[in-house]
Amino acid sequence: MKEAVKNRINITDKFWGRYLDIVSEQVIPYQWDALNDRLPNTSPSHAIENLKIAAGEAEGEFYGMVFQDSDVAKWLEAVAYSLEHKSDPELEKNADEVIDLLGRAQAEDGYLNTYYQVKEPGKRWTNVRDNHELYCAGHLIEAAVAYYHSTGKRKFLDIMIKYADHINDVFGNGENKIQGYPGHQEIELALIRLYEVTGDEKYLNLSKYFIDERGKQPHFFDTEKKKRNDSEPFWFHNDYAYHQAHKPVREQEEAVGHAVRATYMYSAMADLAARTGDESLVEATKKLWENVTQKQMYITGGIGSMAFGEAFSFDYDLPNDLSYTETCATIALAFWAKRMLNLEINSNYADILETALYNGSISGMNLDGKKFFYVNPLEVSPQTCEVRKDHEHVKPVRQPWFGCACCPPNIARLIASVGHYIYSQKEKNLFVHLYIGNETSFDIQGTQVQITQKTNYPWDGDVAIEVSPETEHTFTLAFRIPGWANRAIVKVNGEAIDHLPLTKNGYVYLDRTWAANDVVELSFPMEVERIQANPQVRNNVGKVALRRGPIVYCLEEVDNGPNLPGIILPRNAELHAKYEKDLLGGVVVVTGEAQRIEEENWENALYRPVEDKTKPIQMTAIPYYAWCNRKPGEMLVWMNESLN
Amino acid sequence: MKEAVKNRINITDKFWGRYLDIVSEQVIPYQWDALNDRLPNTSPSHAIENLKIAAGEAEGEFYGMVFQDSDVAKWLEAVAYSLEHKSDPELEKNADEVIDLLGRAQAEDGYLNTYYQVKEPGKRWTNVRDNHELYCAGHLIEAAVAYYHSTGKRKFLDIMIKYADHINDVFGNGENKIQGYPGHQEIELALIRLYEVTGDEKYLNLSKYFIDERGKQPHFFDTEKKKRNDSEPFWFHNDYAYHQAHKPVREQEEAVGHAVRATYMYSAMADLAARTGDESLVEATKKLWENVTQKQMYITGGIGSMAFGEAFSFDYDLPNDLSYTETCATIALAFWAKRMLNLEINSNYADILETALYNGSISGMNLDGKKFFYVNPLEVSPQTCEVRKDHEHVKPVRQPWFGCACCPPNIARLIASVGHYIYSQKEKNLFVHLYIGNETSFDIQGTQVQITQKTNYPWDGDVAIEVSPETEHTFTLAFRIPGWANRAIVKVNGEAIDHLPLTKNGYVYLDRTWAANDVVELSFPMEVERIQANPQVRNNVGKVALRRGPIVYCLEEVDNGPNLPGIILPRNAELHAKYEKDLLGGVVVVTGEAQRIEEENWENALYRPVEDKTKPIQMTAIPYYAWCNRKPGEMLVWMNESLN
Repeated sequence: MKEAVKNRINITDKFWGRYLDIVSEQVIPYQWDALNDRLPNTSPSHAIENLKIAAGEAEGEFYGMVFQDSDVAKWLEAVAYSLEHKSDPELEKNADEVIDLLGRAQAEDGYLNTYYQVKEPGKRWTNVRDNHELYCAGHLIEAAVAYYHSTGKRKFLDIMIKYADHINDVFGNGENKIQGYPGHQEIELALIRLYEVTGDEKYLNLSKYFIDERGKQPHFFDTEKKKRNDSEPFWFHNDYAYHQAHKPVREQEEAVGHAVRATYMYSAMADLAARTGDESLVEATKKLWENVTQKQMYITGGIGSMAFGEAFSFDYDLPNDLSYTETCATIALAFWAKRMLNLEINSNYADILETALYNGSISGMNLDGKKFFYVNPLEVSPQTCEVRKDHEHVKPVRQPWFGCACCPPNIARLIASVGHYIYSQKEKNLFVHLYIGNETSFDIQGTQVQITQKTNYPWDGDVAIEVSPETEHTFTLAFRIPGWANRAIVKVNGEAIDHLPLTKNGYVYLDRTWAANDVVELSFPMEVERIQANPQVRNNVGKVALRRGPIVYCLEEVDNGPNLPGIILPRNAELHAKYEKDLLGGVVVVTGEAQRIEEENWENALYRPVEDKTKPIQMTAIPYYAWCNRKPGEMLVWMNESLN
Repeated sequence: MKEAVKNRINITDKFWGRYLDIVSEQVIPYQWDALNDRLPNTSPSHAIENLKIAAGEAEGEFYGMVFQDSDVAKWLEAVAYSLEHKSDPELEKNADEVIDLLGRAQAEDGYLNTYYQVKEPGKRWTNVRDNHELYCAGHLIEAAVAYYHSTGKRKFLDIMIKYADHINDVFGNGENKIQGYPGHQEIELALIRLYEVTGDEKYLNLSKYFIDERGKQPHFFDTEKKKRNDSEPFWFHNDYAYHQAHKPVREQEEAVGHAVRATYMYSAMADLAARTGDESLVEATKKLWENVTQKQMYITGGIGSMAFGEAFSFDYDLPNDLSYTETCATIALAFWAKRMLNLEINSNYADILETALYNGSISGMNLDGKKFFYVNPLEVSPQTCEVRKDHEHVKPVRQPWFGCACCPPNIARLIASVGHYIYSQKEKNLFVHLYIGNETSFDIQGTQVQITQKTNYPWDGDVAIEVSPETEHTFTLAFRIPGWANRAIVKVNGEAIDHLPLTKNGYVYLDRTWAANDVVELSFPMEVERIQANPQVRNNVGKVALRRGPIVYCLEEVDNGPNLPGIILPRNAELHAKYEKDLLGGVVVVTGEAQRIEEENWENALYRPVEDKTKPIQMTAIPYYAWCNRKPGEMLVWMNESLN
């Protein structure tokens, strides 16, 4: 067993510190109320009640999604990370009580799933394709591992070890075992975390089994279906591509189907590839990464452009207004990116991680932590969402809770664990992937090294990293040059160095003997960039998006008036970035003189010969993640552009 | 009773002549096979079989849509018009046999609807909201009137008079009558045609009753629903706006709901307004006309931008790729426009009529008359239609037939009756609305006047109208100056006249004494116009459509390669129009040098800072109506534009 608490990290960052505070002060208590059905005017969760019923401590019926347990798991995981950030005895007591309840609800043999225990006893594992038992188990395992790391308490971990052992008895090769795998991936990556903390290879092997078995013929979903006398064609075009089970994972070259399922699986593939060195898996994982990030990803890190199936569609199909881009999918992209960095150090992975963190994931939550988007499109016209059924999945304002409440606790656990994304360590290399103010320490080949990052990121690109080994020590500090940074300046103890010869795959490798209070200063000048999309993205030809550092910008009606597509940004318009401390929790806004097509002189014409009547307007763009925190209205990322 | 055959018209036009030939030689026989279930690999119609079963001459069950009878009706109506164009004894014999069959299927009391007669006897008129009895009756009445005008035979008319009388007994104010109206409007305009041919005011009054009663409280659909113990909320947002029955018609200011239902009703409103002079109805009809044509109409004359409910959505919501724009809806727009011209002479109505005729209606049929579009979007990417459920209503190629086969016979009857749209007459005014080669004659205040139009329209705008009264006669020839014609030249017997002082609401009123072989020559120079959309149309900012005369152009992949949005048309690019006799049955193509964003140098980037890399390409645009008659692929009407 690994020690419970490894390198603690203290987030001192203004940007993420605020988010962490909101998660611990607002989101976690709010979601606790939600799980206990104490929120007015929202879909009830019933998740805690289901556990009580399963434990025999309450009467009643199971209520909620078949995966309702996972909301409890994700909440516990968020609590675990939050407790790393700030101790909170009362919260920890709550969590301990939930864990005790989980223990009491657990069946003798280790099984733990309130849907089947309460609603369909005797039917366990009969519909692994649809009914999320392994998915819920995965989330509970992740939470248990996190709680152990955070608190050092083993109880939850032991509960989940017992369950995992049971699952290991039920699934796998061998007589009387189910040769199958989950319809919603998640347990694969959870089992690797369980392996990491326990060192027990059977969990690694079971994860590997689930991945290797997937998509083989004869098809498990067919066999399982037949066994339960189900003759219905599967609702998603009768195609197991929805579950990424249409063919073995090593033969998959394009991301297809449900985006969260897919990306959880790709994360597990990256984990397994990094741990096993399996070349065919490495190759498949990289191919899928390239497909997603080079052909199916929005500029915000949003993925999954179709509402039907919450799914990937096809290369370059990235409509701005119809997109699904589920909050959970962008979160999953961050999970995946982090794991790709374990597989291979390349700034491309960290760039995407950064994009996902600062844009399409946190856009899923109001700045006050009280409301959530499930769907994060890049263009919203409220009237369109209200009237058009093809846009009904797009809510023009964040919602207090959801019947399918996967996103709110997922964003909570991501934010609460943001400290886990900043560094990674491999032998004598300490990698800095993200620039987030924090204090932490690492054991580098036996020497304790204190690391302190100071930065005002993402609003400016100056970063100071203080490196203080307890005694002088030679090792490599490898830090990322962000893809957007064109003229990076690197100084060591005040002296500029030429970092280009030290750079490999976007990381600068500073191999030197470090002494106490050494300081590396990085300067990544942030300019407002006009970004264009690959011309194969049908909807974005003639349009630009604004980006500054890692932040993608958008226009909102509240700043720019209605009909945002009527605004045209001239290529030569000067753009100004200015920090507004009182706006949206403190953001850099981008302003400039744009043109607006005159609507006044159209009278009653719907079509007419071309005529150029525009008028100058002052345009204001705000960070995408912060949209819809003032007066609701239209929003637009990709702006029309003119070349003069 | 009016005389059966009024002014015959002989279409000598090359453009419409070809279409008329195709309708009589191809479409009508093809649809006859369809109605008789003799088409391979298509949804069976069963429409004739249903009639035989109703007549007791065949065994079996009713099959098809609840409005399957209307396909027979529309076919008969098309046959009627086609027989005006070209006699065809065999076809007429077929039609007579169908009419005999209708007579034998008709119930004792006049009722005639195979769905209820065969499938739900005893349930007549229990669900007038959904089950299309009055709709089918309307189509049969229209067909009967047309057949009487065309052939002089009364049998069909008598059958329908009997049915109409029965309907008049069933519906209306008065005890034991149903105080209701149809869920799908159509009978309203049909009854006016029946009134016109019979002179019997009860039909006019019944039509007026249906229109006036609509949308009143307590709501007929609620009452009717209660009576049949139906407690289901209505599927379209539980809102009778779907049927334009959400409020009385005079209070309706915006087009809402199912576009064909709406436009058939607006047509009837225009008819009634013209005949009754009812000011409130005139005003409501004009308001709705303005709303549709100034805020909810595509440049092709397509209307109804939503697949859900085949419906109007809201002002300026005109997405190019998601649009429904049903063929029948554009046909209905032509019906309505024609009736607006009866209400008031204004070239605006005829311009829209012309737009609908030359673009969004005939686009519904392949040039060979063998395949049909139900949905006519302005931008098609086949892969999008295949993969994305939100686009599944869009078929990237025309289909041989449909389970709901309303469009094919509707386009047939429109084309076959195109001669009815060219002129109208009011007292001593003879109005020329459309420029289509033809020979016909009118009785103008007792003098027979021969009219011959010669033109190569729509490919050039030169028109010669020969006016030959049997004896010298003073009357007014009033002809339209098309809205697109900027520099019209008008000559009378070779001499140019200043037509501006003679122009009112877009029509030139030539009031003179006409003698044999007088010739009016019109010249409307056709230039390729770059059209832009009102900037409130979100999707079209920065885009242009090409139009020449009445013809809207599009780009096709077969001419321009894939990824059509990657083509950018510079504002200053010269555009050339050239007649290609061997292309697509003979069309003017528009060519010019455009720019294409380079796709080659993007390598694997999905997003990058702006950089202008375009290459010149030769662009070819073809008439929209003719798209998808060669190799299937992408299509695009609204092109990206650059200002230099």
